[in-house]
Amino acid sequence: MDIAIPLFEDFTALDAVGPYEVLSRVPGARVVFLAAEPGPVRTDNGMLQLVAEAALEDLPAPEVLVVPGGISADRFAADERYTGWIRRAHETSAWTTSVCSGAILLAAAGVLDGLDATTHWLDRDGLAARGATPVPDRVVERGKIITAAGVSSGIDMGLVLAARLAGEDVAKAIQLGIEYDPQPPFDAGSVEKAGPRIEGLVRAAVAARDERSAARQAAG
Amino acid sequence: MDIAIPLFEDFTALDAVGPYEVLSRVPGARVVFLAAEPGPVRTDNGMLQLVAEAALEDLPAPEVLVVPGGISADRFAADERYTGWIRRAHETSAWTTSVCSGAILLAAAGVLDGLDATTHWLDRDGLAARGATPVPDRVVERGKIITAAGVSSGIDMGLVLAARLAGEDVAKAIQLGIEYDPQPPFDAGSVEKAGPRIEGLVRAAVAARDERSAARQAAG
Repeated sequence: MDIAIPLFEDFTALDAVGPYEVLSRVPGARVVFLAAEPGPVRTDNGMLQLVAEAALEDLPAPEVLVVPGGISADRFAADERYTGWIRRAHETSAWTTSVCSGAILLAAAGVLDGLDATTHWLDRDGLAARGATPVPDRVVERGKIITAAGVSSGIDMGLVLAARLAGEDVAKAIQLGIEYDPQPPFDAGSVEKAGPRIEGLVRAAVAARDERSAARQAAG
Repeated sequence: MDIAIPLFEDFTALDAVGPYEVLSRVPGARVVFLAAEPGPVRTDNGMLQLVAEAALEDLPAPEVLVVPGGISADRFAADERYTGWIRRAHETSAWTTSVCSGAILLAAAGVLDGLDATTHWLDRDGLAARGATPVPDRVVERGKIITAAGVSSGIDMGLVLAARLAGEDVAKAIQLGIEYDPQPPFDAGSVEKAGPRIEGLVRAAVAARDERSAARQAAG
């Protein structure tokens, strides 16, 4: 069973690696990282590269798609190499999934038209603008489409999908294998729990990052 | 502030990428992936490569070390390139940390002698054999040393460390930024919660994997 994870410049590493770590442990699964061209793909902060083993067109019909997000989701939502691949792969996939703003790419490919879906809390308006109905849940399953909320939610989504692919016992064994017994030191993982002051800090950090990113694009 | 993450063949991706995703968001932090030689380093299941940007000796004195684990932890615990680098970097580090069986490398470097530490639940005996005192907690902080339990615990450890480095507000903003509001579909993240039947499934899968790995090593 091929599980394809398409990478693109400025993606968010944990969006991809969370589901990978879970799904690679499903018996018979082969996780394959793809990109427009094979080779290293750099993450959003410039500090890490993951290697895409093959080009998108090398794996046109995987059983499972997992589309990660990133600060460049809007840019690649306008890139037909990615959206065309998603659209065609979705025609024959058993499961089509996304993490974080990866839902923006699914929506741009036409996969989420009129459907409930989730994404990073900062991207709900963008998702609605592309024809999906944003739902503020961590994992949203509609038919063969599963979308997950921001960044770390891909681990939860991976476990939901592992149970669909191989049964609950296998999913539980994977959870124990990766010792996923979360104990965050704070309870600030959602806007409601974190409160407006912490939300303001995130919005300010994101605005500063987007400004730097725009400057880099302009200079590049 | 340099945060060094040493990679080695057959490491576990999420051990490294969990803390990276958190700590890369600390203002002023630069996360650098290292290895014996710069270049792609393959993970435990052979399905992914992360790129080490520099050699270990290129960054001898980072402020923070984060040592991931992997099925090859014992092998690299016998590799003086890694243990020597850890030992020397620890002399001047502000924080020395590990995730999962990364604690085995810290112990082999002499960093954990007589100290409380945690690791993957399957590696507690191995850690004790190397002179540390295994504690079944998710994150264990002793002076400037922080160890984390299996694989996914590096996210929790990253948030603990982010609070030490930059204050609780920054750590909470990072938690909200990566939407770390965990909602696993099952409650099977520890041996106690998963029960003996699921534990047996994990032990069988690990035994099969170790057998395959030994066969690969023997085949050269």
